[in-house]
Amino acid sequence: MSEGQNPYGVGLDKCPANFLPLTPLSFLSRTAAVYPDLTSTIYEDRSFTWAQTYDRCKRFASYLSRRGIGASDTVAAMLPNVPAMNELHFSVPMVGAVLNSLNVRLDAPSIAFQLDHGGAKTILVDPEFAGVITDALNQMKGPKPFVIDVDDVYFKGGKRIGEIEYEAAVGLGDPGFTSVALNDEWDAIALSYTSGTTGNPKGVVTHHRGAYLNAVSNILAGNLGQHPVYLWALPMFHCNGWCFPWTIAASAGINVCLRKVEPTKIFALIKQHGVTHMCGAPIVYNTLINAPDAPKGNAARRVVGLIAGAAPPVALLEGAESIGIKLIHVYGLTEVYGPASVCAEQPGWDDLPAADRARMKRRQGVPYPLQEAVTVLDPQTMQEVPRDGETVGEIMFRGNIVMKGYLKNEKATKEAFEGGWFHTGDLGVLDEHGYVIIKDRSKDIIISGGENISSVEVEDILYKHPAVLFAAVVAKPDPKWGEVPCAFVELKDGASASEADIIAFCRSHMSGFKTPKAVVFGPIPKTSTGKIQKFQLRNQVGSAMAIST
Amino acid sequence: MSEGQNPYGVGLDKCPANFLPLTPLSFLSRTAAVYPDLTSTIYEDRSFTWAQTYDRCKRFASYLSRRGIGASDTVAAMLPNVPAMNELHFSVPMVGAVLNSLNVRLDAPSIAFQLDHGGAKTILVDPEFAGVITDALNQMKGPKPFVIDVDDVYFKGGKRIGEIEYEAAVGLGDPGFTSVALNDEWDAIALSYTSGTTGNPKGVVTHHRGAYLNAVSNILAGNLGQHPVYLWALPMFHCNGWCFPWTIAASAGINVCLRKVEPTKIFALIKQHGVTHMCGAPIVYNTLINAPDAPKGNAARRVVGLIAGAAPPVALLEGAESIGIKLIHVYGLTEVYGPASVCAEQPGWDDLPAADRARMKRRQGVPYPLQEAVTVLDPQTMQEVPRDGETVGEIMFRGNIVMKGYLKNEKATKEAFEGGWFHTGDLGVLDEHGYVIIKDRSKDIIISGGENISSVEVEDILYKHPAVLFAAVVAKPDPKWGEVPCAFVELKDGASASEADIIAFCRSHMSGFKTPKAVVFGPIPKTSTGKIQKFQLRNQVGSAMAIST
Repeated sequence: MSEGQNPYGVGLDKCPANFLPLTPLSFLSRTAAVYPDLTSTIYEDRSFTWAQTYDRCKRFASYLSRRGIGASDTVAAMLPNVPAMNELHFSVPMVGAVLNSLNVRLDAPSIAFQLDHGGAKTILVDPEFAGVITDALNQMKGPKPFVIDVDDVYFKGGKRIGEIEYEAAVGLGDPGFTSVALNDEWDAIALSYTSGTTGNPKGVVTHHRGAYLNAVSNILAGNLGQHPVYLWALPMFHCNGWCFPWTIAASAGINVCLRKVEPTKIFALIKQHGVTHMCGAPIVYNTLINAPDAPKGNAARRVVGLIAGAAPPVALLEGAESIGIKLIHVYGLTEVYGPASVCAEQPGWDDLPAADRARMKRRQGVPYPLQEAVTVLDPQTMQEVPRDGETVGEIMFRGNIVMKGYLKNEKATKEAFEGGWFHTGDLGVLDEHGYVIIKDRSKDIIISGGENISSVEVEDILYKHPAVLFAAVVAKPDPKWGEVPCAFVELKDGASASEADIIAFCRSHMSGFKTPKAVVFGPIPKTSTGKIQKFQLRNQVGSAMAIST
Repeated sequence: MSEGQNPYGVGLDKCPANFLPLTPLSFLSRTAAVYPDLTSTIYEDRSFTWAQTYDRCKRFASYLSRRGIGASDTVAAMLPNVPAMNELHFSVPMVGAVLNSLNVRLDAPSIAFQLDHGGAKTILVDPEFAGVITDALNQMKGPKPFVIDVDDVYFKGGKRIGEIEYEAAVGLGDPGFTSVALNDEWDAIALSYTSGTTGNPKGVVTHHRGAYLNAVSNILAGNLGQHPVYLWALPMFHCNGWCFPWTIAASAGINVCLRKVEPTKIFALIKQHGVTHMCGAPIVYNTLINAPDAPKGNAARRVVGLIAGAAPPVALLEGAESIGIKLIHVYGLTEVYGPASVCAEQPGWDDLPAADRARMKRRQGVPYPLQEAVTVLDPQTMQEVPRDGETVGEIMFRGNIVMKGYLKNEKATKEAFEGGWFHTGDLGVLDEHGYVIIKDRSKDIIISGGENISSVEVEDILYKHPAVLFAAVVAKPDPKWGEVPCAFVELKDGASASEADIIAFCRSHMSGFKTPKAVVFGPIPKTSTGKIQKFQLRNQVGSAMAIST
């Protein structure tokens, strides 16, 4: 039908009654209005209701506004999972500003880079990180941000370095503050730098629309229902806690804050508050499973745990069930707001033997409920690979849960979105059901005598060894084969195994060329989010690849 | 921050990788890909999987496309709740066309008006309605649509009047058809004429964005979770079945189709298929509660029922629980995609006595999860009324779950959206918790001796009388008082009551001026969606108001 004739194109325009930008701020205002007296946040012996949290966010937003923070300004935060960190996910966008959460394990030069690059006008700091932030501020090249302390009576030590403390700022604020009108749901809401396992960090800019949609997707993917009790084992600084600050507001749940991952503390909080859901990297669940005081069998309260950050070994998926945690495996990256695919459970899986069920669940899966697509494409032809479980391509995403792009980096943005898809850099295959299975980061492929070896595949075997707590495999330069696999192994407390034991165990489970030729024992370096820092391991073995990462 | 300096405004534009129009078509493609073998639809002894439903929709879309149906063309349907009616909610928008569902109880002149006004190019017809559609086609002023029969082997009688039968058209279609690219999520998806209780019908145009968001809102408001089993007791022609065709696709559930509301059949289907959710007007639940074979107590399977269409009497809310149906009260209009507010349950309600719980649940409530706002405003000042439960204003909505407007009726559209809110025409109050409580349609207020009487309030008392099945109260002209309340009462099977009984019963529960001065016994006329047709009752009593409606 031609444009001129289209009756649906005339007199049916957007107006304030029928169109508003999608923003996760709506979740907070609705929940505060509908469930004002329900608990929003618990931290140690302190707790808030949703009315109080909304009030506090409006007050702090008004404080920021009075300090001149407004649209498209950057507000940085160096905070653990305390109530203020959750509140910043609302108060900062309320003034139209952008939240830049800093990884609390970063060193001063990395922080200085982010503060300069993101142009932070304000930074909120926990006393524990006063030292590193002081150093970072001194190393900055550009104008320094205004510093606000977020004191924590439950933390001993550290110091205050700011001009005002957060509670005082909240106290000065106006609870009648009205959010600045959002021009467009495409406006930036957060800036998150990719973690330091690969070269220079890039500043991932996300938007209100995507945060809104992924917050709802989390409810659907994790079956959160109404009023979940959510334990903050995942750092909120990591991809905005996978959007869960907004998810818990949308579902009128309870944020159980947690400063540090400690198994005994986590088991106590689960019991005390009736935790229903949590998120975390494999390292978190691995730590819980191997804790001596982990409740087993009927003693364990059933908790749904979303897991992502690395392909979870089968042994971990099995182990979690034994301590009462039903895992839902999700997959994603900072560029897709955290998780944006899910290993969607099929009816009948609960009847499978645990090992079979774990094998099904460790796949990266299918698009998140409100994400348009995730699949494996041949990056040359941009055609989907066959569903044969063998043909390797690159895992790519497409949809509304994909970043705006990288801040001040049009080249990287253009490359990332080449051909109309977001390129993850992860290699994978499709199984016969269309589920994505990750094989490796491109750089994690070991090429030995012309054969490709997936380090994930070797690691998966290593995790089956009863003495192994963590395992990582990297390429070691070899005069004959070019590269050979070298295994790094961290043993469980009290367990023992020799290099020969480990190699023999691998040899009995895989082809000779894939078997590690050397085993190094000791603690394995990890990022704060549980990603093993392979570049450090590569440095140890003198891998050529270590130089480029 | 000035525009020129904003780093978030540069190099971070929309592209095919990170932006796609929101459309409920995404739900079907995702569910067909992720759960291809799960059942999508059951109708009598016929059933389809999600892969089959997707295939059938693509085939029929390709058939429509080959027939020249495309962007912004109107496709009408005069169908009961058969699988084809569900499929049209996908196949029609797949070609960019707009679905105009016709109320199957309409007469030929009304249908002719809609077909002319909406410019339908094609119409799908069930054999039961062949007669009225033939008449309507003959009465049309403009070009007649191409007619497609949707035959139903489970229906005896009727006839075929079309040029092709639906299954044949599906058979001719191409399963490789690709949906036409949506230009904008603001594009029209459906055209629904307001039901005939008030004057000339207006053509409500809804859009892909709103349908998408309300489909998800239904999951959240009704706690559908994954894989609900949904019984189609609500007509799909009514506000697109409150968006549930899209909701059930999004949640990968089962559509249990139902041609006609019959209690015995409904109880059998609930048991046979393990129905978990249903929707309906009060009349549907009332019919179930009063059915002689209603399963009671432990014999009843627990079903969650969404109820809307009129303020449910307390007796009905109590009665539903006794037959195993946990009601969630929602409220809305065609202009807001069906339900767009919900009487959100608060923790603790389950512990209340049934009557108290019912009183809480009969309020119209708060905005739907993804709707921005519903409240009561003074239409003169557009200020919210006090939360005193007494000050009457007009119920208004605002947000993304509000229609584009009325087709070819800019005046009505402008009036409906005056002041940035959608005006429902319903009068209400706010209680102390901010919950909206409907008092009446403006025209349903009875003004007696200068006092306003809410007909809903009088009806609610009538429903408490043990012999009353349905009740309606309208204004009757009175020489002394101007108007007095007149009650129309339909008694339960085998029950009896006199006019004096009814009046005395009312008098013992309310002020004298509110007590009906006359009672008329007999069947009460209702629309197909269970709305009592008060204009007919007003005609009977000679109300002045009957003329204007």
